Amino acid sequence: MKCVEIVATTGIDGLRVTERPTPRVGPRHVLVRVRAASLNYRDAMILAGSYARGVSLPRIPLSDGAGEVVEVGAEVTRVKPGDRVCGTFFQRWITGPVFPEIQDTALGGTAEGVLTEFALLEAEGVVPFPDHLSFAEAATLPCAGLTAWHGLFEAGNLRAGDTALFLGTGGVSVLGLQFARAAGARAIITSSSDEKLDRAKKLGASDTLNYAKNPNWAASVRELTGGRGVDGVLDVAGGESTKGALEALRHGGHLAIIGGRSGPGGELDRRFILQKGLRVSGINVGSRAMFEAMNRAIAVSRLKPVVDRTYDISESIAAYRDFLTGKHFGKIVITI
Amino acid sequence: MKCVEIVATTGIDGLRVTERPTPRVGPRHVLVRVRAASLNYRDAMILAGSYARGVSLPRIPLSDGAGEVVEVGAEVTRVKPGDRVCGTFFQRWITGPVFPEIQDTALGGTAEGVLTEFALLEAEGVVPFPDHLSFAEAATLPCAGLTAWHGLFEAGNLRAGDTALFLGTGGVSVLGLQFARAAGARAIITSSSDEKLDRAKKLGASDTLNYAKNPNWAASVRELTGGRGVDGVLDVAGGESTKGALEALRHGGHLAIIGGRSGPGGELDRRFILQKGLRVSGINVGSRAMFEAMNRAIAVSRLKPVVDRTYDISESIAAYRDFLTGKHFGKIVITI
Amino acid sequence: MKCVEIVATTGIDGLRVTERPTPRVGPRHVLVRVRAASLNYRDAMILAGSYARGVSLPRIPLSDGAGEVVEVGAEVTRVKPGDRVCGTFFQRWITGPVFPEIQDTALGGTAEGVLTEFALLEAEGVVPFPDHLSFAEAATLPCAGLTAWHGLFEAGNLRAGDTALFLGTGGVSVLGLQFARAAGARAIITSSSDEKLDRAKKLGASDTLNYAKNPNWAASVRELTGGRGVDGVLDVAGGESTKGALEALRHGGHLAIIGGRSGPGGELDRRFILQKGLRVSGINVGSRAMFEAMNRAIAVSRLKPVVDRTYDISESIAAYRDFLTGKHFGKIVITI
Amino acid sequence: MKCVEIVATTGIDGLRVTERPTPRVGPRHVLVRVRAASLNYRDAMILAGSYARGVSLPRIPLSDGAGEVVEVGAEVTRVKPGDRVCGTFFQRWITGPVFPEIQDTALGGTAEGVLTEFALLEAEGVVPFPDHLSFAEAATLPCAGLTAWHGLFEAGNLRAGDTALFLGTGGVSVLGLQFARAAGARAIITSSSDEKLDRAKKLGASDTLNYAKNPNWAASVRELTGGRGVDGVLDVAGGESTKGALEALRHGGHLAIIGGRSGPGGELDRRFILQKGLRVSGINVGSRAMFEAMNRAIAVSRLKPVVDRTYDISESIAAYRDFLTGKHFGKIVITI
Repeated sequence: MKCVEIVATTGIDGLRVTERPTPRVGPRHVLVRVRAASLNYRDAMILAGSYARGVSLPRIPLSDGAGEVVEVGAEVTRVKPGDRVCGTFFQRWITGPVFPEIQDTALGGTAEGVLTEFALLEAEGVVPFPDHLSFAEAATLPCAGLTAWHGLFEAGNLRAGDTALFLGTGGVSVLGLQFARAAGARAIITSSSDEKLDRAKKLGASDTLNYAKNPNWAASVRELTGGRGVDGVLDVAGGESTKGALEALRHGGHLAIIGGRSGPGGELDRRFILQKGLRVSGINVGSRAMFEAMNRAIAVSRLKPVVDRTYDISESIAAYRDFLTGKHFGKIVITI
Repeated sequence: MKCVEIVATTGIDGLRVTERPTPRVGPRHVLVRVRAASLNYRDAMILAGSYARGVSLPRIPLSDGAGEVVEVGAEVTRVKPGDRVCGTFFQRWITGPVFPEIQDTALGGTAEGVLTEFALLEAEGVVPFPDHLSFAEAATLPCAGLTAWHGLFEAGNLRAGDTALFLGTGGVSVLGLQFARAAGARAIITSSSDEKLDRAKKLGASDTLNYAKNPNWAASVRELTGGRGVDGVLDVAGGESTKGALEALRHGGHLAIIGGRSGPGGELDRRFILQKGLRVSGINVGSRAMFEAMNRAIAVSRLKPVVDRTYDISESIAAYRDFLTGKHFGKIVITI
Repeated sequence: MKCVEIVATTGIDGLRVTERPTPRVGPRHVLVRVRAASLNYRDAMILAGSYARGVSLPRIPLSDGAGEVVEVGAEVTRVKPGDRVCGTFFQRWITGPVFPEIQDTALGGTAEGVLTEFALLEAEGVVPFPDHLSFAEAATLPCAGLTAWHGLFEAGNLRAGDTALFLGTGGVSVLGLQFARAAGARAIITSSSDEKLDRAKKLGASDTLNYAKNPNWAASVRELTGGRGVDGVLDVAGGESTKGALEALRHGGHLAIIGGRSGPGGELDRRFILQKGLRVSGINVGSRAMFEAMNRAIAVSRLKPVVDRTYDISESIAAYRDFLTGKHFGKIVITI
Repeated sequence: MKCVEIVATTGIDGLRVTERPTPRVGPRHVLVRVRAASLNYRDAMILAGSYARGVSLPRIPLSDGAGEVVEVGAEVTRVKPGDRVCGTFFQRWITGPVFPEIQDTALGGTAEGVLTEFALLEAEGVVPFPDHLSFAEAATLPCAGLTAWHGLFEAGNLRAGDTALFLGTGGVSVLGLQFARAAGARAIITSSSDEKLDRAKKLGASDTLNYAKNPNWAASVRELTGGRGVDGVLDVAGGESTKGALEALRHGGHLAIIGGRSGPGGELDRRFILQKGLRVSGINVGSRAMFEAMNRAIAVSRLKPVVDRTYDISESIAAYRDFLTGKHFGKIVITI
């Protein structure tokens, strides 16, 4: 089968398009013919060797894929050949709260990823996706979509009528914006590009702010909420953005900490958390049960994730390269 | 001022349109020029003498009104003359969980109601309503709207992608349907009238069921959810409806018990609750904090409550009479 | 191996002590040398043919056992030979909320039980128990203990300083009493036997009430809480007990519905639930994650479950017979 | 009446013992004859001029007092003369989540404090305390006690069987330790003084660690929990302690951020929060409803807060001075 491998964690040069034998299916596994996969910052960090956890090489990259089941193991009843599914980022986090061992089976990291014609996944580690989505659209969900859903609704308890703030127009933020709107919440989004803000407006953003033109954007967010502040923020960025987010939150509001372009680092000022009685949660993608809940919401609202551009698997290196420029709005997808 | 009084709890004959002196404003009270009021089953029960709590007579009826503040007490800063507000059903339930003393200040019951030109309310017992609502629309919220909101989202934790079931097309059910849709949930509604189901469909109902034509409607609800069952039900009815609701709920689903047309009574079978691990909550209208949360959701979604018909205060007796026929869809409103 | 089988669901006559081949261990299973097992009302109902779900015969009975692991399958890393473990009631309910399929692997019902020398269990379906417990004490936990824990703390959120009410001195109630006290809560317990109430007092009951002597025991419970009412009740009984429990609860209090001596049936009056804004939950034993949480609480408090009397496996029929008299306090255990 | 005033926020020199007229009681106020008051770091910061919010001078200091009601306003029914009560830190935070305006009525800060013979408090701003406590013991509760309770149980959801970590032996930590033990949790505490650790052990600490002798104390905490990590931490200190706390927490554990000796400042590393999926909450004392819940827990467990030393009001300056040395264990109390 055709696949991509990371052969060295030295950046773009470490990628190669290659062939491997198609995996054989064990009794509790399923084989998925992957049709589309999408890129996340974690994938860039893994390739650059800057990810918290090392990967053994060669490794098939990418956590986020969608395809159809082609074969199931003898004990498998959850899915059947022909089902359209995504793989779950953590193959063994089914439900309940986070636990350390989820990291042992992370697609494209500690386990083989999905940038391949055929992916061997745990029977419990796949989830059917809504009928109205294409493979490319579904491929945006396993990491970026679920992270946004988890941060907004599972950890943050955002409700209809609440206001959420999104920092920039990367994949997590744009999907978060769509989820917030579908759930009856108000969504404010920032960017340094008026063009991207226009696209966000068309997707339903209630209000947009160009932080390059308006350095006091956090104060503007407060004004937009009548001085109350926002209920939840997806903090994908760290650094100055996080400071603005802390300022923009209401008393008792929720900050979801997400690893983004700038990596997992940066600091939080205890003072803000204390004075406003804030709640902060670290968001590690999510469980399969959360994925299923997200899919139900997508099905009811019939929202469509935004695919910025698609590449063929043979153009994978170009896809990574363009992803690293940060010029995209929504998700970069590779079709297979 | 013009007002309506209950002079005997013997049914329609016990009502009269009359005059009273306009109340004087104490330091922590506000005077509201009521513009619209709406009817609930509780009002009919009070008038019939079948309500759990007796009322002292004469009593101005109705809990649900909207109007504008015309005068505020010396210590009042929350609102000012000209503000458009609703009174809260329980004048002293501001926030936090339910407590017994809320019953001591229930409008139109233990306290004077709002079917009057001028209502004297606690400064803490009024809440501004969304700008896009008329007085008549806002008057549907204090009891019926808040009960639906509380049952679905505060007690029941309904989320985007979940499915809610509504039994009949009374005020609570129709507002609940609108709230559920605004929050990205699916809404299934029943009625014995195809005409009412058509109206529900136009309001956004995902699916409708005529229980008169389909005695196995509960099984049909399960089918509509792929066999999973619904996440939440507003049980406004008791009796056979409740049995169907218990059957239609998913494992771990939520039944919100609400006093409706048939009064608060009836029984619940422990067996269903046990076997499916259900959750059941008694819903007593709600707190002001819940009202404010509901208003934010209404403002974001710009939904408009359904006013079936309006009557002038001089036609109050006709309004009660028509209400008792149960032919309305949504709410009966009296303008003042 | 020696074991007990149900050969007919016709009551005591349907039991026999017999031999079976020792099971062979698959890759994701463990073999446990059972040392003790305990009886629950469900076991009596299954034997009498009155349980909601039929069982295929012959069937090894009992859900609640403790023993030591003697062999593990090739893929098993959770436990190792020599570990002291209990089996989990639902072999595949690991964590998260209840779901219908848990019923497919219920020990002593849809799956073979633990009244046997050797039980073949799922690797994910065993849980180590606290060091200070004997096998007999640990055997009280899987159904009765976990049901009490789930009802009080997982569904009911009982906290230090709250008051819980226990109806009678069966296994669930006595373990619940001990858990409530270990968690810093107050515990009120009822019985028709002063002798049993004395024993409950020695176990830490804050207050005891003889319902045979005091038909107004529910009013007495309210007095004992200064008129406020209790925060939580384990409703093991149905019928008149349930009515008293509803009366004894505070506004917003929690009723945990549990299948007990009188089976799962009976009715709940909607009126009480509505007027006091009560919360009601159906309790289906619980997940392994709940079991682990319970075990941590038992380990910290070093509480010892109450074993009323032990029987040898050869005396199993006598054990069932004595259990059915209802004269025990705490649990009846069979050692193997 | 005798009282203490801050006349300049320049440290100890800014305090004076003086006289003021006894306040007159308005219709919704109560007059309390204060019998004891206790010191918190906030009081030291206010005196030093380093508190986030300025105070108008002269100001009677201290938030934490206990005494008996001597007079109530015309509209007051909650309490009566003779009742033994504490004042609530935030006079108008009754129940529900935090909101900005709580800061407008903070005793000893934006409002007059309790280091005075007679304190005029809001009728809603007093709370009866458990019978088994002396005035001195009760005076430890309004800030230090409630902060610990809120951080452990309201924000952190600590349960029986969980493990909590306490950093140092200041007032919040020692009360937190007692609450955790009363609630059936395990408590690990650190100090640089073996003598203080001995005292903590006698109060029920499950394990103690001298961080001066064991710089790897965070790793030792993990070992004490079998590698799992602790469920909750009260982070009173910031700086290096916070780093250790983040290391000691389990996946999904809870960090309660509290303003302590080192003020509200310091930074939190996003990396830890993200990788372990931690939850963080800022703790602003708490509401009256939380105070009442805490009091119920204290009453059931009959725990006694630790008063390190008491001073007469005339020795107030010495009390502050000794407090600032940090040599105390538990609370410093001034009797009046």
